[in-house]
Amino acid sequence: MLRFWAYEAALMGNDVAAMEELFADDPGTLRGDAAGLLVGHDRISAFRGNRGGAPRRTVREVHRRDLAPDAALLIAITRPAKGGRGQQTQVWQRSGGIWRVTAAHVAIPAAPLDTRIWRLVGDPLVPTNPAVPDDGSGELPHLADEAPLAGRTVAVKDLFAVAGQRIGAGSPAWLEEAEAEPAHAAAVEALLDAGAQVKGIARTDEFAYSLAGTNTHYGTPPNPEAPYRISGGSSSGSASAVSSGHADIGLGTDTGGSIRVPSAYQGLWGLRTTHGMISREGLLPLAQSFDTVGWMTRGPELLTEVTRVMAARALDEAYSGPVEAAAAGPLVVFDGMLALADDDVAVAVREAAREAGAIEETGVRPEEAQTLRKVLQAVQAGEAWANHGAWVSQHWDRLAPDVSGRFQAASERRADELREAGARAKALKQHLRELIGDRVVVIPSASSVAPMSTEAAAGGPVIEAARAATMALTSLAGLAGLPAVSVPLATEAGLPAGMCLIGPPGSDLALVRRAASIRG
Amino acid sequence: MLRFWAYEAALMGNDVAAMEELFADDPGTLRGDAAGLLVGHDRISAFRGNRGGAPRRTVREVHRRDLAPDAALLIAITRPAKGGRGQQTQVWQRSGGIWRVTAAHVAIPAAPLDTRIWRLVGDPLVPTNPAVPDDGSGELPHLADEAPLAGRTVAVKDLFAVAGQRIGAGSPAWLEEAEAEPAHAAAVEALLDAGAQVKGIARTDEFAYSLAGTNTHYGTPPNPEAPYRISGGSSSGSASAVSSGHADIGLGTDTGGSIRVPSAYQGLWGLRTTHGMISREGLLPLAQSFDTVGWMTRGPELLTEVTRVMAARALDEAYSGPVEAAAAGPLVVFDGMLALADDDVAVAVREAAREAGAIEETGVRPEEAQTLRKVLQAVQAGEAWANHGAWVSQHWDRLAPDVSGRFQAASERRADELREAGARAKALKQHLRELIGDRVVVIPSASSVAPMSTEAAAGGPVIEAARAATMALTSLAGLAGLPAVSVPLATEAGLPAGMCLIGPPGSDLALVRRAASIRG
Repeated sequence: MLRFWAYEAALMGNDVAAMEELFADDPGTLRGDAAGLLVGHDRISAFRGNRGGAPRRTVREVHRRDLAPDAALLIAITRPAKGGRGQQTQVWQRSGGIWRVTAAHVAIPAAPLDTRIWRLVGDPLVPTNPAVPDDGSGELPHLADEAPLAGRTVAVKDLFAVAGQRIGAGSPAWLEEAEAEPAHAAAVEALLDAGAQVKGIARTDEFAYSLAGTNTHYGTPPNPEAPYRISGGSSSGSASAVSSGHADIGLGTDTGGSIRVPSAYQGLWGLRTTHGMISREGLLPLAQSFDTVGWMTRGPELLTEVTRVMAARALDEAYSGPVEAAAAGPLVVFDGMLALADDDVAVAVREAAREAGAIEETGVRPEEAQTLRKVLQAVQAGEAWANHGAWVSQHWDRLAPDVSGRFQAASERRADELREAGARAKALKQHLRELIGDRVVVIPSASSVAPMSTEAAAGGPVIEAARAATMALTSLAGLAGLPAVSVPLATEAGLPAGMCLIGPPGSDLALVRRAASIRG
Repeated sequence: MLRFWAYEAALMGNDVAAMEELFADDPGTLRGDAAGLLVGHDRISAFRGNRGGAPRRTVREVHRRDLAPDAALLIAITRPAKGGRGQQTQVWQRSGGIWRVTAAHVAIPAAPLDTRIWRLVGDPLVPTNPAVPDDGSGELPHLADEAPLAGRTVAVKDLFAVAGQRIGAGSPAWLEEAEAEPAHAAAVEALLDAGAQVKGIARTDEFAYSLAGTNTHYGTPPNPEAPYRISGGSSSGSASAVSSGHADIGLGTDTGGSIRVPSAYQGLWGLRTTHGMISREGLLPLAQSFDTVGWMTRGPELLTEVTRVMAARALDEAYSGPVEAAAAGPLVVFDGMLALADDDVAVAVREAAREAGAIEETGVRPEEAQTLRKVLQAVQAGEAWANHGAWVSQHWDRLAPDVSGRFQAASERRADELREAGARAKALKQHLRELIGDRVVVIPSASSVAPMSTEAAAGGPVIEAARAATMALTSLAGLAGLPAVSVPLATEAGLPAGMCLIGPPGSDLALVRRAASIRG
């Protein structure tokens, strides 16, 4: 006897033991839903143990199809208590006289919006610019003819001003007190001017002070390229919007890796721009010495196009460095920094670099890279506290625990320590720029593939070490203020990893093109 | 040999013949996706013929499970060209030596928002009111203690002002020219004051001038209670948002049935309020003589609660009629109007009315009801043209064909005809109110179940007759300016139908409670 109703009762009662018994204890048992496909009874059981019950539902109709004496298909159409319709497809097989599910495909109604990815979504969210203004530069004459980003949609990280909307900064408490912004941020305006549509405002880690994307207020955005793994952050919503196909362009920021890390974890192309080059007008700061505007896409062509548009329209007025620098110098892998990465990531990056003809040199040794990280983190902490300390001091209990902990540590830094770190950062910027010169340096974008969500939630030394190693990598471009492109690779196991190309100041567009020529 | 890759190639090439051959030619063949479950090879083929191809995708991974010598399960994880991940579950069976699909479950990534239902969605869209003001009436003392609609979400029809957002009116051309609204409409403000959250702005038929929901600019919102059938309109997006579980409360308007028809088609509870009682401040009008504010919910408790809140907070300043009238009079079915409905609907309504102990009388004969419809349509046309004619005259080519046709006909009405219709409407309002008296009248909410989308799109005399019969029914409360509740029923075939209860002026809350006591 097929035990469909027993399963339904177990599901509604969240009777995990009964559900486990009803699913075949077999490494080939399958369970798929929108989040991903679980293979094997053990993984399915672990999933059930974590989720805390299924949404309430009743069964509208059941269709049974007998496939063999010992195999049957069952499709149930469900009525969730909260509305909509779902479908449950089950394959039952009889073994030892007992029917058990050997495969299930579960579909529940889509939510009106995925609040892990988005705070606001519209069709579009704000009016598009009906005509693209001629920027008068004469240097990109085809821009005046047609909008280069016409039809492209943008996920705007919730740190940028969108006219008429508040900035939420990933913080419910901040959002509550925020006022609607009178005008678009410069970067948003530039994308609109180029014909793009603002699809919505995407989640960020609270005040962008994390690289994980595990915003405890709103949940971790999904990672469709690596199910059950974290999104990476802090430009987490923008990244997930792009990888999920919700938007074409993810507008974000990168202070200590917030573009490069989610790009690596989710298999995206991403650019962290030359520090100071792209206007940060209308952007809520975290740490001005390192804050940069950046963007992510699914492919290199669009990354190039966005970079071209932004370098023409969104330059910071105060920026006096080069804008159209070349990235034609030798390609060189910093071996010393590969040692910071997990083997699977290091192998993928080394292989891709070799294919591209890169030279290998030590570059920066692991312990030196950890020093870079410490200096960057100190300056970042000092500036983050200067920016947000007054407000944070009034809202400790409203912050996510990880972010609260970081601000707490920031508040305890000594003034002399910060002064010294500032001086070292300045010296290191000069030193690192000289070390890199006109070359294009290759390192991993992040030290590992995206950690499993359950591991990330549990925290502990492994996760802390991965974060430290990743920041040791990202601090190179961070301290040097250099542009960095994350190029998607795959590990041997098929998981996304990122190869980071770092180029000379102002080489952003050339660097993206160089990256595209290598892996495009 | 299992022909998975052949199917994938046929799908990508939209080779309908090949796909038909690969699916078993059997009335039990199944194909399900988020829209619904198709049973039988013929229905699946018809669906394929209509959809114009599947979205581009590649296959990430394939899992095969042999179930018997002649049956196998195949699960493919797909990578749509536009991002995200999909799952395709197929059961293959061999018959006569040939493998064919006998069941398929297709899952594609959810869109960032369902643009058939919504124009804008937020978490929430606008700030919630942190505290519920005491309305000072003293009549509902518990309102001051806690927000009665706390945690409830609202889909606002795109005719109501939402502060900071434009009114779109279901018309892209209107939206383009619209300016952001400075303040919330009175009805929106009342819901916020009661603690509700605005989830988003929902689609409407263009200028609300339709009962179908088939907005050609944005698509027809889905009807999860009756897959492949139209939503009903014009409060189509609000209704679908509620039935899909995207919102708890659908805020809409009802001029000639725009709350009652989608409620009936989608199995919702809906109230059209006493004409003039609920403030229309901040509402784009269609025809002021009949325009009313209304709301829809999945169950009677919330309908009651919303009605209580609105009757306490959103009264029109100019309204001088009763507000707390009783609806305790005899329940009476208007047999003459049952004759306007299809048999399945008439049977369901008659049965439910009998169960509730309703008396039967002729009430209004079918030809009289058609006269009511004609009078209402004439006055509606005159007012719609007075409201929108100037703008419409400049935008004929931007309107949906059906709405354009209605405005065209409206523009051709003669002034003397409109004057006469106005006088007749006035007389009929008096006459109908006397006819109904203090009784509660039962009629069908709509003359039929929701038409199939394909039939509605094709139009023709059957669809026209159904529309005329439905409007002959809805014109009773429309002309009389009386409150009307649509109560969900099911036909023998299991499709949603609506029973309409019409009560005395100002009996709105009592009428909802009466309806709930009958079918709650």
